[in-house]
Amino acid sequence: MYLCTCMQQQYPSIVLENAVNEFAKLPGIGRKTALRLALYLLKQDTESVEQFGNAMIELKKSVHFCKTCHNISDFDECEICADKNRDKSTVCVVENIRDVMAIENTNAYKGVYHLLGGIISPMNGIGPGDLEINSLIGRVAQGNINEIILALNPNMEGDTTCFYIYRKLADFNIKITTIARGVAIGDELEYADEITLGRSIVNRINFSG
Amino acid sequence: MYLCTCMQQQYPSIVLENAVNEFAKLPGIGRKTALRLALYLLKQDTESVEQFGNAMIELKKSVHFCKTCHNISDFDECEICADKNRDKSTVCVVENIRDVMAIENTNAYKGVYHLLGGIISPMNGIGPGDLEINSLIGRVAQGNINEIILALNPNMEGDTTCFYIYRKLADFNIKITTIARGVAIGDELEYADEITLGRSIVNRINFSG
Repeated sequence: MYLCTCMQQQYPSIVLENAVNEFAKLPGIGRKTALRLALYLLKQDTESVEQFGNAMIELKKSVHFCKTCHNISDFDECEICADKNRDKSTVCVVENIRDVMAIENTNAYKGVYHLLGGIISPMNGIGPGDLEINSLIGRVAQGNINEIILALNPNMEGDTTCFYIYRKLADFNIKITTIARGVAIGDELEYADEITLGRSIVNRINFSG
Repeated sequence: MYLCTCMQQQYPSIVLENAVNEFAKLPGIGRKTALRLALYLLKQDTESVEQFGNAMIELKKSVHFCKTCHNISDFDECEICADKNRDKSTVCVVENIRDVMAIENTNAYKGVYHLLGGIISPMNGIGPGDLEINSLIGRVAQGNINEIILALNPNMEGDTTCFYIYRKLADFNIKITTIARGVAIGDELEYADEITLGRSIVNRINFSG
C-alpha cells in the first residue's frame, strides 16, 4: 500500500524513511527511537533543523586534530599543547578525548596528553598499527619527556595496551607509571570487588593525614 | 584552559561543542550520549556525515502533509487517501503517524485515517484548537462518512479527546466507535490490571469459535 518498504516497518514518506535510516545508524539508537527523533525534528522550525544538520556537516569539515597529541581541536595545535603553563615533560596516555575531558575535569593534572585513538583489541580487529603508538614513541625519542602516565581503562584490552606500550618504551630512560587502581572514594569496602580490593591492599600508600 | 566553556563540561573544540549541543536538544539524549554520537560521526567518512546532515535538512524541506488526513507524505495526498481500494466511508481518528504505522502493520484495517496531530492535554497547554478537530468535523460534514473509529491511547488525555470529539460529532448521523479495550492476546488474566479486566468483562463479545 505504501511507496517504500523496509524490513520491519513501512514509512509513508521516502524523506522520512531516509531520516530514520540515518538516525538508526548511530550507536545505541534503534528504529523506533530513530522515528521518534525524526518526528521531533519535523516539529521544529526550518531554521533549527538546518542548524542541526549543518552542525554535523561542519563538525566533520572543520574539526582539526592536534599534530602533537591528536586531541580534537579547532586549530593545528590543541589548547593544552599550546598552553605554556602545562608541563610538557609529563605525558598522560589515554584512549580518546572523553578520557581527556574526564581528567581535565579533575583539575588534578598539569601535564600534557597523548591520545591513542583507541585500544588494542584483537576481537575488534584493532592492532597496535591502528593506534597512535608510533607517534608516542617518536615523541619520547625526541628526549624532552621524563614521565609517561598510562591512563587506560582497567580491563583486558587496557592492560594489553599498557603492556605493549611499556615494552616499546622500556629502552628509553623515562619513568613509566599507571593511574592508581583501588577502592573509589565514597565506596564501602564490603561492596568492592575482590580484585580491586586486593590491588588496593598490595599497592597501599603511606598515610599522610 | 580551554577556549569554550559550558555549564558542566569543557569541550576542546567549538565545532564539537556545537554538534554536542544540537544532539543534546533531541528528546531523551543527554550531554554524555550527545558527545558519544558526535564522536561517532567524527569517525565516519565525510560523505556519510554529509548524508546524515542533509537527510535531516531534506526531511524538513521536502516533507508534505496529506491535505485530507494530515498524514506525512511525499505528495499533497498520502498513499492511503489516494488508494482506490481503501474504504473512504470509514475514518480512524489517531493521534499521530506512529499510530497509523502501528495500525497499518496489523493489516486489519482497510479504511482511511485522520491524524489529530496531538491530544487534548491542558497540562501541556494543548487545547482542541491546536488539533485537527475542526477539519475532522469538516470531513464528516461533507456527508460521505459512515463511521468514525476513535483509536486514541487509553489514558486520561485520550479519553478526554475521545469525549470531546464524540460531543462535536453527536449531531451527525454517523456511527462512532472506539477500539476495544481488553486483555491483550498472550496475557494472563491474573496479571491484567483491574480496570482492563473489568472493562473486558463488561464489554464481552459473543464467542465465535
